[in-house]
Amino acid sequence: MSLIEQFNWRYATKKFDATKKVSQENVDNIIEAIRLAPTSSGLQPFKVIVITNQELKNKIVPISYGQEIVADCSHLIVLAAWDNYTDERIEHIYDIITEERNQPADRYDAYKNRLKANYGSRPAQVNFEHAARQAYIALGFAMAEAAVLKIDSTPMEGFSTVDLDQLLNLQEQGLKSVLMLPIGYRDEVNDWLQTMKKVRHPKSEFVIEIE
Amino acid sequence: MSLIEQFNWRYATKKFDATKKVSQENVDNIIEAIRLAPTSSGLQPFKVIVITNQELKNKIVPISYGQEIVADCSHLIVLAAWDNYTDERIEHIYDIITEERNQPADRYDAYKNRLKANYGSRPAQVNFEHAARQAYIALGFAMAEAAVLKIDSTPMEGFSTVDLDQLLNLQEQGLKSVLMLPIGYRDEVNDWLQTMKKVRHPKSEFVIEIE
Repeated sequence: MSLIEQFNWRYATKKFDATKKVSQENVDNIIEAIRLAPTSSGLQPFKVIVITNQELKNKIVPISYGQEIVADCSHLIVLAAWDNYTDERIEHIYDIITEERNQPADRYDAYKNRLKANYGSRPAQVNFEHAARQAYIALGFAMAEAAVLKIDSTPMEGFSTVDLDQLLNLQEQGLKSVLMLPIGYRDEVNDWLQTMKKVRHPKSEFVIEIE
Repeated sequence: MSLIEQFNWRYATKKFDATKKVSQENVDNIIEAIRLAPTSSGLQPFKVIVITNQELKNKIVPISYGQEIVADCSHLIVLAAWDNYTDERIEHIYDIITEERNQPADRYDAYKNRLKANYGSRPAQVNFEHAARQAYIALGFAMAEAAVLKIDSTPMEGFSTVDLDQLLNLQEQGLKSVLMLPIGYRDEVNDWLQTMKKVRHPKSEFVIEIE
């Protein structure tokens, strides 16, 4: 088995069929793919917001500079990164880890202290940038899972993060929006991009092999 | 089909069996997954360096703060992002796209001009940070493909990017290292992490649903 066929099948869908909805089972699998994605030190420094409320999706169209896909999609997934790494957030996940693994509570003390010292010495903006990067790994896992399930998805950076943060009250939750991933089913008649050939840099100029 | 089983199978391998090598066919598939990963505006602002040279892998151990996995792995994949977006780089990929799609050479002029104006107005560091994020999507695709192929991989940020850039002469190529992904086969006897339960934030606190 390989995912190359699925990775060739997927494309950044430009028009969704608003009448077709993704099943709860499939949505759950895409969310689980996001949850299972690896992150630096296992901190998972972001949250997943899944929006199906149509009124809210409509409000996000102008925030996305008029892109109707956020309204027409079945589910709008938003990845919002921690605004900063804090001692509390670091402690919390390692509390969960020691409990789930039945380990002594002090098992990761030295490791946690290194993390706290490292992140604590850096400006919040640097930490946010690092947290944001982790969300992109999860985006990759989500798109891979969606493609395997034959569900269309569109990775999106093109929106006002400031406006979306305000609309979703993210600042109060210590979060900043980073990515959106509308999922659903392509409009096979009206999506101009679906028939276009997928083009990438040729391997010869994209890959350097050192043997 | 779903990837959840594979995503549960994979883990950040801490010790590779140095005697086991990944086949060229499988390496090619993982590289192809990286090449097919979506990126902002399709620019693919990074390159893939695949290192099998043992002497070079050994030199990267101290750069990785002593992590032997970069020496023991079968293939060491490095993702290095563009140090900046330039007009030339933007033109180049759109030259390829118009040719591959048999489109008029001016098909994307307006779009390209917007990209050039946007990236051209931003500091190189901001552009690099944006390019670096794109590499994380590709990392996700690579790990997904590796897991499907039952190949172990370890996502790594923990290395001196400055030292690696120098060793690989990346600055001269307009690149800056961002991520490493050693791939290979786990040492089933000596990897302390392989038997540990994978732990994540529970869905109840990781996901916010707005219906």
